[in-house]
Amino acid sequence: MKWWGWGSDDVSFTHEGKPELAPFIERVLGLDVRRPGTRPIAFRDLEVPAPQLEAGLAARLEDAVGTEHVSRDDHDRVVHARGKSLTDLIRQRRGDFGRLPDAVVRPATEDEVAAVVRAAVEEDAVVIPFGGGSSISGSLEAEAGEARPVISIDMSRMNRVVSIDSASRLARVQAGVFGPDLERQLNARGWTCGHFPDSFTYSTLGGWIATRSSGMQSDRYGDIADLTRGLRVVTPTGTLVVRPVPSTSTGPSVREMVLGSEGRLGVITEATIHVRPVPAERKILGYLFPTWAAGLAAMRDIAASEASPSVTRVSDAPETAFSFAMREAPTALDRVKSRALQAFLRRRGWDLDAMCLSLIGYEGTARHVAGQRKLTERIVKRRGGLGIGQSPGRLYDQKKFDTPYIRDFLLDRGAPADVSETSAPWSELGTVYDQVMAAGHGAFRRLDVPGYLMCHLSHSYHAGACLYFTFALKPPGDHDPLEDYRVVKHAIQQAFVDSGATLSHHHAVGTEHAQWLEEDISTPGVAMLHALFDGTDPGANLNPGKIVAGVPIREPNA
Amino acid sequence: MKWWGWGSDDVSFTHEGKPELAPFIERVLGLDVRRPGTRPIAFRDLEVPAPQLEAGLAARLEDAVGTEHVSRDDHDRVVHARGKSLTDLIRQRRGDFGRLPDAVVRPATEDEVAAVVRAAVEEDAVVIPFGGGSSISGSLEAEAGEARPVISIDMSRMNRVVSIDSASRLARVQAGVFGPDLERQLNARGWTCGHFPDSFTYSTLGGWIATRSSGMQSDRYGDIADLTRGLRVVTPTGTLVVRPVPSTSTGPSVREMVLGSEGRLGVITEATIHVRPVPAERKILGYLFPTWAAGLAAMRDIAASEASPSVTRVSDAPETAFSFAMREAPTALDRVKSRALQAFLRRRGWDLDAMCLSLIGYEGTARHVAGQRKLTERIVKRRGGLGIGQSPGRLYDQKKFDTPYIRDFLLDRGAPADVSETSAPWSELGTVYDQVMAAGHGAFRRLDVPGYLMCHLSHSYHAGACLYFTFALKPPGDHDPLEDYRVVKHAIQQAFVDSGATLSHHHAVGTEHAQWLEEDISTPGVAMLHALFDGTDPGANLNPGKIVAGVPIREPNA
Repeated sequence: MKWWGWGSDDVSFTHEGKPELAPFIERVLGLDVRRPGTRPIAFRDLEVPAPQLEAGLAARLEDAVGTEHVSRDDHDRVVHARGKSLTDLIRQRRGDFGRLPDAVVRPATEDEVAAVVRAAVEEDAVVIPFGGGSSISGSLEAEAGEARPVISIDMSRMNRVVSIDSASRLARVQAGVFGPDLERQLNARGWTCGHFPDSFTYSTLGGWIATRSSGMQSDRYGDIADLTRGLRVVTPTGTLVVRPVPSTSTGPSVREMVLGSEGRLGVITEATIHVRPVPAERKILGYLFPTWAAGLAAMRDIAASEASPSVTRVSDAPETAFSFAMREAPTALDRVKSRALQAFLRRRGWDLDAMCLSLIGYEGTARHVAGQRKLTERIVKRRGGLGIGQSPGRLYDQKKFDTPYIRDFLLDRGAPADVSETSAPWSELGTVYDQVMAAGHGAFRRLDVPGYLMCHLSHSYHAGACLYFTFALKPPGDHDPLEDYRVVKHAIQQAFVDSGATLSHHHAVGTEHAQWLEEDISTPGVAMLHALFDGTDPGANLNPGKIVAGVPIREPNA
Repeated sequence: MKWWGWGSDDVSFTHEGKPELAPFIERVLGLDVRRPGTRPIAFRDLEVPAPQLEAGLAARLEDAVGTEHVSRDDHDRVVHARGKSLTDLIRQRRGDFGRLPDAVVRPATEDEVAAVVRAAVEEDAVVIPFGGGSSISGSLEAEAGEARPVISIDMSRMNRVVSIDSASRLARVQAGVFGPDLERQLNARGWTCGHFPDSFTYSTLGGWIATRSSGMQSDRYGDIADLTRGLRVVTPTGTLVVRPVPSTSTGPSVREMVLGSEGRLGVITEATIHVRPVPAERKILGYLFPTWAAGLAAMRDIAASEASPSVTRVSDAPETAFSFAMREAPTALDRVKSRALQAFLRRRGWDLDAMCLSLIGYEGTARHVAGQRKLTERIVKRRGGLGIGQSPGRLYDQKKFDTPYIRDFLLDRGAPADVSETSAPWSELGTVYDQVMAAGHGAFRRLDVPGYLMCHLSHSYHAGACLYFTFALKPPGDHDPLEDYRVVKHAIQQAFVDSGATLSHHHAVGTEHAQWLEEDISTPGVAMLHALFDGTDPGANLNPGKIVAGVPIREPNA
């Protein structure tokens, strides 16, 4: 795993083979990505603070998981110090490490996790569960002033599908399994979990649960909150066992307290999750809408209809332009821009700069797919949309997990890029979008830097949907990119909560979104979370400072 | 409202007009219901303890809601003292009142609720929110030894649909609205909430939320936990406001903490709930299965299929026999038992004493209903089932809310009857059923009393379903019916948690199920609930003793 960026050391993004991308980026950010970027300093040139682990605790940890699974290695500690937020990446690249963990332990069983937690609580150390390390909300970093020993519990050895209950369509799975490994184990027996977040390659089941993750096919499979039924969580008072019943009336839902708990209540060791047979047919089709408003209205109509597609996604015009600029070889998509189609769309009165690309997915038996498609396309047509075939969907499906690598490519060239996502009722989505766009572009203007802001709708529900914003900026050489980034991120997040939307649909609170929590869930809501965390973990040994009382991104004097 | 039984003073159940019912009850319970029953003692003959409300608190309450809305009337206080559990009914009928509330206050606005809660916390009184008063889990009764003043907050004046957001299919609704009034207000504008619990007539939106209620069409509309998006709750630290966003990643779900909280976190004043257009077509059709196992398998197959009916319900053989015994006039159902059909079923190898009645509902456009029905009936047929038309569904639909009145009819004749419901994964339902049946019949045998125990499956989910048991017994004259009832209830509830099922699917914990909570959600789960309640309500002013630390039904020395 890269200590300074996303994903594997041997994978990176390049503009090469995407002929329209470099001109596009030059046009919108004034950045020539054909010039080589700077790379982070070499790991050997970094000054990594030595671990502080007194002998008694070290012995207990080694006793718990075996000597070879307690690591004090510098690279290990640096990789486990943080997630992959833009703030994390910039600071890592600078060698500005903050409070590194003193040890990385790798338990193989729930008993080993329990022994680690017991040792930590009794010796007054801090434990931070670590799944795939891809948090982009600051959920993995110890507090700056933490004087106690800090232990990162890497769950990756607990990666088995324990059993599958075919009749109930439930699988017992260890929490440390990564997305691809989970699907591989399930697929081998004909099943799928169907949870495909953008972080899929570098995130784990336990991490999904701890952050309330959502995958791109959530319209069909549900969010991780819907997919998770049973739970096992090592807490300071023993192992919490949530039974995998379909629905229950046992007071406030303990299951829903673990979901999104970011390690504040304990270490998730196992979950019993929904699985479904691998569908006979799976199609993601491309559509174009003449405007963003038409695209939004179509998605809303589909949610209100008797159709139930597996994916509903529509990009605004800026993201549509970016998608077209990402094209590799000539594909069927190209037909869209062919003179003939352009002429056709213009005759229909389309403004090609306003048009919006949509992807809609269908899954199931051939008959079901055909029926769903028919119902859905009737709505698309009524909203002025146009089918453009399978190519855009195929491309998206192949490339969806590569997107995070672009951030490092741009950061190498001095351009911070990041995402912020939210959700709101259908009736508010247009307003939320307008306010976020105004806030983001206002921030670019205040900073006087070139910036780009784009959005797509995904994850449709009965009463609303997720809006997912991506932004990039190119500060001049005399600006601190981290400070400029924070101004834009702050403006967007503030626009979310000011417009009645939520601080995050599926990226969690961590420390980076904590300052908006009170505005989102109100003061008594924060008080309830405090009550839960403080009462469950009176010694503040479990990932303290996350969700509530975190280190906020403050509005800098921009 | 009856102070001694279910529902309105002017409605009661009778066996008259149901020619097969009295013989059926005589056969299974040895009870001749044609003999007149005893009625509860007259209200005027009761000794109702005087309220204890010191002048300062009384003045603050009158200031908060107006003098005319603070009641110290005996009948009012008796009606608000408890819900309608069998234990409640038996004790009420005996004039054994427990700790009555000292005042019943009826606020009209959230501000008035806040003033009442503020007064209660500052004067160290206890507040117990009261919706429809139909709790059957002991959620409404003050603790026996409560020395502080007890205030019942009757929410029935807060009964308006505030607004409807048609685009988002959301309605803002005050929490005190009763089921029929809610549907009336929504229907007038073309909408429905679609939440129809058996208690519908005598329960409120706030009560549904506070107990995690589920309605008979939950397969389509979801449980109340799914239907509830936004919330307003008056807490000791101010008004909790949960935004009506479709999904969010703001840490442990505060929304899901309010769901099922039974007044322990505050008073729910308003919710923003899902609504849907009143469907064009709505059908509930009857089916017969040759065995309970075949019925269960069919329901499971339907849940795993691409069909999505609105109701899936199948009764076991004892409940099927009871349903047939409840028939009024000759209906199409009678054809089922006609000689011709009986002969036909026997030719197919059916044992008529083992056959199981099923109801499956379909809703939506005519095309959708037809499509769903086709998909579903293919499964029914594959599992050996047989369609028997619309009559059983029509009968069920008309009579579904009358069922609770039967309890009083039987109790008048010395026969306690009650319900216990649970949920479990599909693979476990057969075992859970067998163990509950064995436990219930074991209890009847130990007590040496005639008893009847029957069950239906309802509320199907991806991974499991609800099993709903109904039982009745006829203790001899020298037994205490309450003690005998408790032995049976205890045996059934214990069988739930022993077989991996949950203590309640949708009737809440209250005090009556509290003793099984730790076995269900494990010790750390109880600790988390304690942390939440104790931290949010440090003075224990909010309905103390419910869910955790309640007064359990203990296994008597039977």
